[in-house]
Amino acid sequence: MNWINKVAIIGGNHGNELTGVYLVKKFQQQPSLITRSTFETLTILGNPLAIAEGRRYIDKDLNRCFHLQSFQNTPAKAYEESRAKEIQQILLPENQPGVDVIIDLHSTTANMGISIILGNLHPFLLKLASYLSFINPLVRVYYHEQPKYSGYIRSLCDLGIVIEVGAIAQGILDAELFQENEKIIYTILDYFEAYNQGKEIHNIHTLTIYKSIGIIDYPKNEHGEIRAMIHPQLKSRDFQALHPGEPLFLSFSGQEIYYEGECTVYPVFINEAAYYEKGIAMHITQKELVKFD
Amino acid sequence: MNWINKVAIIGGNHGNELTGVYLVKKFQQQPSLITRSTFETLTILGNPLAIAEGRRYIDKDLNRCFHLQSFQNTPAKAYEESRAKEIQQILLPENQPGVDVIIDLHSTTANMGISIILGNLHPFLLKLASYLSFINPLVRVYYHEQPKYSGYIRSLCDLGIVIEVGAIAQGILDAELFQENEKIIYTILDYFEAYNQGKEIHNIHTLTIYKSIGIIDYPKNEHGEIRAMIHPQLKSRDFQALHPGEPLFLSFSGQEIYYEGECTVYPVFINEAAYYEKGIAMHITQKELVKFD
Repeated sequence: MNWINKVAIIGGNHGNELTGVYLVKKFQQQPSLITRSTFETLTILGNPLAIAEGRRYIDKDLNRCFHLQSFQNTPAKAYEESRAKEIQQILLPENQPGVDVIIDLHSTTANMGISIILGNLHPFLLKLASYLSFINPLVRVYYHEQPKYSGYIRSLCDLGIVIEVGAIAQGILDAELFQENEKIIYTILDYFEAYNQGKEIHNIHTLTIYKSIGIIDYPKNEHGEIRAMIHPQLKSRDFQALHPGEPLFLSFSGQEIYYEGECTVYPVFINEAAYYEKGIAMHITQKELVKFD
Repeated sequence: MNWINKVAIIGGNHGNELTGVYLVKKFQQQPSLITRSTFETLTILGNPLAIAEGRRYIDKDLNRCFHLQSFQNTPAKAYEESRAKEIQQILLPENQPGVDVIIDLHSTTANMGISIILGNLHPFLLKLASYLSFINPLVRVYYHEQPKYSGYIRSLCDLGIVIEVGAIAQGILDAELFQENEKIIYTILDYFEAYNQGKEIHNIHTLTIYKSIGIIDYPKNEHGEIRAMIHPQLKSRDFQALHPGEPLFLSFSGQEIYYEGECTVYPVFINEAAYYEKGIAMHITQKELVKFD
């Protein structure tokens, strides 16, 4: 494993997720907070137009625009396609070393607490995530496999992670989650610094992950409109066991709809506002213990 | 007092407040739910374009467009100005009787529970609000004085009320608050029915109101950007006493900012997402006991 030479912190990839926006603004005003002796740290406000308008995106979701073919095609049609090209050129400039790590800051209306999202199981990421959940046992790790250039900004490099905090409504700040999010960024940067300096700071070789196995959409009527809501008994129960036969939804007329899967799953992103239009009421995961060297 | 002849229920005045949108859709699919023998009930989806886009509004806040001069000026420039004209013509058609009551359904990211907002202290509204808080002691009444045609849809008639439920993030549904909201609408309609039938159903002549006395904005830097968040100790404490010297905000650098007023106030709409752009961190109110005949 090479040293970490360049780290990028992205906020406002979605313009209405203010925690990342204001953390990045804070770092831009006080760069010493994220300066470490052995590597460079870049900060980027992902979607400035969407931030100005307080919306997730203008034309399309920026965090689904980081595809290899998008960078090859010209010209970009949507604002976010051209912005993705710009960001890609900052992160991975031609004929120069690109970033080694991408830390993408998000918030969610789901009760995800402080979560780390991994798109691959690179041993370096597993060890980092294991360290973070050792330092703060409330940190949980959601693994959603994404090959390189799968559309997400974190998929631009091997060591891409998301910090996802919630529940926070779109367009607002939560002081406690802001501070928790800030703290975990410093822990990550300090971890890279120690790694670069050859210090062994974590010798646990296991990690509990919640591995994505699919999604569940809202029940819909013949016009494609939702006809049920997240059941009160499932509300805010991200990362908790959902057993076959337990309630999933409550229809507008008060009818209960149950989970009919065959095994226990662990839902995440329950009732995320931005996923209504994507046809996702929740992602479901399996809980696994991963061992690594 | 005349009989109630026509009642309007508005949902989706703000397109990303889904509770009202889906309640109105439910009523439109099952009109019998809101049909009473002594009056007519209309339903309106306020801002269809904004609902389709999952945004509060397209060009400007529809619920600030109901001004008399807007209806006289031609032509409307913003989408919401022309939509306000259309709605005004439905509610108050020329040469025909207009609605007697407007019930405008909203949700908020603030922890307002089930709140009734009044724009005037008409005795009929006071008695209705007193009845609602008698039936459900969790119902609270926020009084924000608004003359007729002050921009809000509820200001189009004397008997205009808002039902404001929260905390709900923009763009999502909360099953329990949906059902609470639905229930209170039926209670209101049943109250009108009983009133029209000459039944005396409530003989309490007092009401606790939270009367708006102003707003507090976020602390801002020289560029007009917010530099602090709602303090964790104030979070979700809508309708609860805030005493001089208690914490209001926590700055991004961790500095506490205190309430420096001279008397105890009761904040509402704390951390409402849509009010960031309006320069409002919260409304502050005085708690008062109102007596009426």
